[in-house]
Amino acid sequence: MSEVTQSVNNLINQLGKLPGIGKKTAERLAYHLLHQSKAEALALAEAIREVKENVRYCSVCYNLAEGHLCAICSDPQRDRSTICVVEQPRDLMSLEQTGIYRGCYHVLLGRISPLEGVNPGDLTIDALVHRVREGQVKEVIMATNPTTEGDGTALYVSNLLAELPVRLTRLARGITSGSVLEYANKEMLSDALSGRQTF
Amino acid sequence: MSEVTQSVNNLINQLGKLPGIGKKTAERLAYHLLHQSKAEALALAEAIREVKENVRYCSVCYNLAEGHLCAICSDPQRDRSTICVVEQPRDLMSLEQTGIYRGCYHVLLGRISPLEGVNPGDLTIDALVHRVREGQVKEVIMATNPTTEGDGTALYVSNLLAELPVRLTRLARGITSGSVLEYANKEMLSDALSGRQTF
Repeated sequence: MSEVTQSVNNLINQLGKLPGIGKKTAERLAYHLLHQSKAEALALAEAIREVKENVRYCSVCYNLAEGHLCAICSDPQRDRSTICVVEQPRDLMSLEQTGIYRGCYHVLLGRISPLEGVNPGDLTIDALVHRVREGQVKEVIMATNPTTEGDGTALYVSNLLAELPVRLTRLARGITSGSVLEYANKEMLSDALSGRQTF
Repeated sequence: MSEVTQSVNNLINQLGKLPGIGKKTAERLAYHLLHQSKAEALALAEAIREVKENVRYCSVCYNLAEGHLCAICSDPQRDRSTICVVEQPRDLMSLEQTGIYRGCYHVLLGRISPLEGVNPGDLTIDALVHRVREGQVKEVIMATNPTTEGDGTALYVSNLLAELPVRLTRLARGITSGSVLEYANKEMLSDALSGRQTF
């Protein structure tokens, strides 16, 4: 395209590589950045640079961290005897936003997926087994996604931990608050029935 | 939020300032950038920096440019006797993508909008009148948006140019190729009827 400058084209291409950002959206974002003040636009560039330079994985739980330990593992208020196992840091973030969990986490950094070539050895399962084997842990809550692959990963991990003296649980399944029974699917209703709770 | 690092939070905030990017999307984009290689993520940061440092407005037509003149004004192949007047550089880009226009442009950098406090003096109308007054221009095509404000701006500009020896035209209006008459609205059909063309 001769009609825009090389820098603008380059920016549109770079923005278009982001997930869910197509050509038209990339163009709109690029023009927005062009119209913004220099300081505002450079704040975004700087934020990207800082994240790539400062953020690494926590050496204990593989959550995102800026130092050796993440904010949760370095918080003395958190209960170290409970570990919640999630697939990704963003799952951890969603759970944290509920504000009701006070234990620690373990981030697998993925789920077992033979079709995508992700094997158990590619995840941080060994580190989890090591943490549990150290003895301080009383409960491991499996909080992988409720998908075939997430469930499979949870099953694999709980089989590995079954021989250790630790309580294994998983997130409750059932109907979602605010939903309508009429539109609930079969799986949701059968989960809700088989996991029914006493008043 | 204590659960993510400060750099990640900052990146999410910066991404959330982009138009059409809400909190959830900003989080997804931030995690995408975290998972990318350092080189890929920094390419985006660098692209933003370059755009803000290199891109300015063309001194003739106010299109985006990396030097004194934009790619179109510095192209000797373009017909300097025809000027197409658009609101924004992105409109120019859309017209260029058709590949059928070989004249030059004039970017107003907005449209007259008393409600938003945009007056004729805030646009590049004076520079356009100056260009036309120089005498080389034979035709001015008004290509502002077909909205109340775009039409108003076109009317204002053409009144200013009416006394000069130049042909004033505007983009054709009518039904859109590939549309269905049944669903066409009143304005579209009345434009199509009043502007009907001979076979």
